[in-house]
Amino acid sequence: MPFTTSIKVRFGDADPAGLVYFVNVFHYFHIAMEEFFAARCGITYEKLMTDERVGFPTVNVQAEFLTPLVYGDEAEVEVYVSRVGEASATFEYSVRRANDAVICARATIVQVAMNLDARRAVPIPDKYRRVFADSRD
Amino acid sequence: MPFTTSIKVRFGDADPAGLVYFVNVFHYFHIAMEEFFAARCGITYEKLMTDERVGFPTVNVQAEFLTPLVYGDEAEVEVYVSRVGEASATFEYSVRRANDAVICARATIVQVAMNLDARRAVPIPDKYRRVFADSRD
Amino acid sequence: MPFTTSIKVRFGDADPAGLVYFVNVFHYFHIAMEEFFAARCGITYEKLMTDERVGFPTVNVQAEFLTPLVYGDEAEVEVYVSRVGEASATFEYSVRRANDAVICARATIVQVAMNLDARRAVPIPDKYRRVFADSRD
Amino acid sequence: MPFTTSIKVRFGDADPAGLVYFVNVFHYFHIAMEEFFAARCGITYEKLMTDERVGFPTVNVQAEFLTPLVYGDEAEVEVYVSRVGEASATFEYSVRRANDAVICARATIVQVAMNLDARRAVPIPDKYRRVFADSRD
Repeated sequence: MPFTTSIKVRFGDADPAGLVYFVNVFHYFHIAMEEFFAARCGITYEKLMTDERVGFPTVNVQAEFLTPLVYGDEAEVEVYVSRVGEASATFEYSVRRANDAVICARATIVQVAMNLDARRAVPIPDKYRRVFADSRD
Repeated sequence: MPFTTSIKVRFGDADPAGLVYFVNVFHYFHIAMEEFFAARCGITYEKLMTDERVGFPTVNVQAEFLTPLVYGDEAEVEVYVSRVGEASATFEYSVRRANDAVICARATIVQVAMNLDARRAVPIPDKYRRVFADSRD
Repeated sequence: MPFTTSIKVRFGDADPAGLVYFVNVFHYFHIAMEEFFAARCGITYEKLMTDERVGFPTVNVQAEFLTPLVYGDEAEVEVYVSRVGEASATFEYSVRRANDAVICARATIVQVAMNLDARRAVPIPDKYRRVFADSRD
Repeated sequence: MPFTTSIKVRFGDADPAGLVYFVNVFHYFHIAMEEFFAARCGITYEKLMTDERVGFPTVNVQAEFLTPLVYGDEAEVEVYVSRVGEASATFEYSVRRANDAVICARATIVQVAMNLDARRAVPIPDKYRRVFADSRD
């Protein structure tokens, strides 16, 4: 089952045009992923990096921005993993405006399991592989 | 001819893994677009918004991150417009590490001309359309 | 009574030294102020700006950073108003690490009621003046 | 002699009120310090951290915001060191608007030399101590 988290749009996230700067929406996606790890994987993303020396840097992004978020909105960010490869996983994100469920943005982001010391790709540990796969159904 | 600008990676741009947080690379792309307007379009992006009430919000992003930038790097960001439609234009961005010209990231970003008061798409003014087209060759 | 809100330190908030970049702690203070308005003043900071055309830009900051926050920490940010003047108010902020209540940072920030159209100082409306004063006790 | 660097206000730096979010001005101060190291200290701040394992985290801030910067402004940020202690130095920053030299912000920021591995204060190396002192005159 996909995982969902709420993120409030902050004053500092919006730009002079009154809309959330698209750059900050990518930050929302990453926050949702951090929350997904804490809620589903039995480890915070921080512990994953510190204790297991594994991170999931982004290698490919496809994103659509459909309706602008504005300051004052609350964003519901959903995330699940649509594909789990040997060393990479494809995370699917969507952002809805909380008050009317309108989809504001969607992204497909490929992230690679990387050993932070060697800075090279490593196989995704089995325990996370299963959790990732379960998020799809 | 494509336009190129230099951006220094700042301390605050890098993350606990020592790499530039991918979110900030999208900020670099936007900075390059702002510089492109100032250098090529005869108007700063700020004046475009203030005086002509036109902005170019992002509607679609495809991006690849090939080699991580780290704190201390200087990024050469190249931008040109590969397609000019009625109300939207496709900007092509690439980021090279200045000291060895290695490509770190690439993006294709579709941006729509929007009237900031009505918050709706408008035709791209002819004067910019020509400049956009010229950046491709 | 002071108001307290929880803010999770995010991956993107920490710097290559592994600590939260001090700049982002000021962002936390502002988030706490936004939450204070929503919880105590009967209006979100966003509505205050949009409907009443009033904002509270920062004019003076005194801050101490005592213990660094790191990625993975949860911050408890407390805020109250220690002084309410004609057009300005002094907000007192403190940040504690949630797991052991250690104080990480403290700030005294003077913010001025500003009409956003005229961009000039205005008297603080009475309804907020009372709420501000109550936060001190 | 104080050191000065130019920083362009970026689209993403300004807030829905059209002004530069005060938080980002602290980022400008830090950028000026990074440039000061590169220009005056014979080492980039990044090399200082990587090779000598020394950083200068912020422990105390006093800042005034006098005139708001807006999107489109160019900021001239001046920095010098007013006091060099055993393990800490006091950096004085000011931000002027480039087109009319109006002072927009000023800050006095105490930064402590810290060994990044031990995360404890260390004496400021003599070579930097001299450069710091020279910036005052």
